[in-house]
Amino acid sequence: MYYPEPISRLMESYMKLPGIGEKTASRLAFYTVNMREEDVTDFAKNLVSVKRDLKYCSICGNITESDPCSICSDKNRDQSVILVVEQAKDVIALEKMQEYSGLYHVLHGVLSPVEGTGPEDINMASLLKRLQNDEVKEVIIATNANVEGEATATYLSRLIKPAEIKVSRLAHGLSVGSDIEYADEVTLLKAVEGRTEM
Amino acid sequence: MYYPEPISRLMESYMKLPGIGEKTASRLAFYTVNMREEDVTDFAKNLVSVKRDLKYCSICGNITESDPCSICSDKNRDQSVILVVEQAKDVIALEKMQEYSGLYHVLHGVLSPVEGTGPEDINMASLLKRLQNDEVKEVIIATNANVEGEATATYLSRLIKPAEIKVSRLAHGLSVGSDIEYADEVTLLKAVEGRTEM
Repeated sequence: MYYPEPISRLMESYMKLPGIGEKTASRLAFYTVNMREEDVTDFAKNLVSVKRDLKYCSICGNITESDPCSICSDKNRDQSVILVVEQAKDVIALEKMQEYSGLYHVLHGVLSPVEGTGPEDINMASLLKRLQNDEVKEVIIATNANVEGEATATYLSRLIKPAEIKVSRLAHGLSVGSDIEYADEVTLLKAVEGRTEM
Repeated sequence: MYYPEPISRLMESYMKLPGIGEKTASRLAFYTVNMREEDVTDFAKNLVSVKRDLKYCSICGNITESDPCSICSDKNRDQSVILVVEQAKDVIALEKMQEYSGLYHVLHGVLSPVEGTGPEDINMASLLKRLQNDEVKEVIIATNANVEGEATATYLSRLIKPAEIKVSRLAHGLSVGSDIEYADEVTLLKAVEGRTEM
């Protein structure tokens, strides 16, 4: 062992985070030794706190401190639209937009035959249950634009449509500010297919 | 605030680490929520432990659990050579080589007039004190190969040489396995200057 024991143990913890290998973990661990004592104890407390103080909203599956979450319990939001996302962090991204005022539903995953993830492995049953409420008029599916995301969107839409609820999908096309030159073919095709009249 | 409070507090802690901005901090914080409870508590404990259980060796300045450190207290090591490095992690890199059996001295920094770091701001006085011991015959300076590292090496060598102790500097040249084509001019110049007879 070249590293002092406390360093190598902290390195192992850092390496459990995504995208952090041995070199980065070593750099972070040595950096931690020189951090202010207060910052390090806060860091430790904050780690424990996210596990202890956060839970999943029993209605939408979002990460929250109180159940139901602040969005589900906000009666000023449009109760007739549910936007379906893969992860809790997608809710944050959409909330930052400050334009959407409906509700959310977090699937915590996507259907993936390759990884053996079926409809019962993700938070899908509770979505169908929410739709039995007559108030819901539209479901917007905002799964990611990849194979699993598309498959999940198609699967959901086939399940929901018979209930005469409108099902929509986020538009695919060019990112705002992007160059056509650098866009991939599939994105370009989607942008042409989904063109809008001026 | 878009993030639940515990998430944003953990993000702030992650952002205190080098090279971690808001996007990465958010990704890591959400990842932490889904980590095993046990791994997160271990992580928190390990953070506190590096601050609590590690200290600087009173002889060489290396990071250690016991003072003096295992290297300084190992009487089988060559007591006549001291290798001077900038950071404790440089000691680890050199120990991995498994060829050097002398002692170390960690400066915890380099001289930098730009940042106002003078000889009294780094662990230099204790090095000079160690050299008063007649056993020391050579000091190998292994500061980094940049402006501050070179300046510190030159400064140290001027201080030490009058005491009739041999002062050497790590060789500069091409990395093993590297292509000449991609080497920078200064490295190439150093490699030519330091050429060895075959």
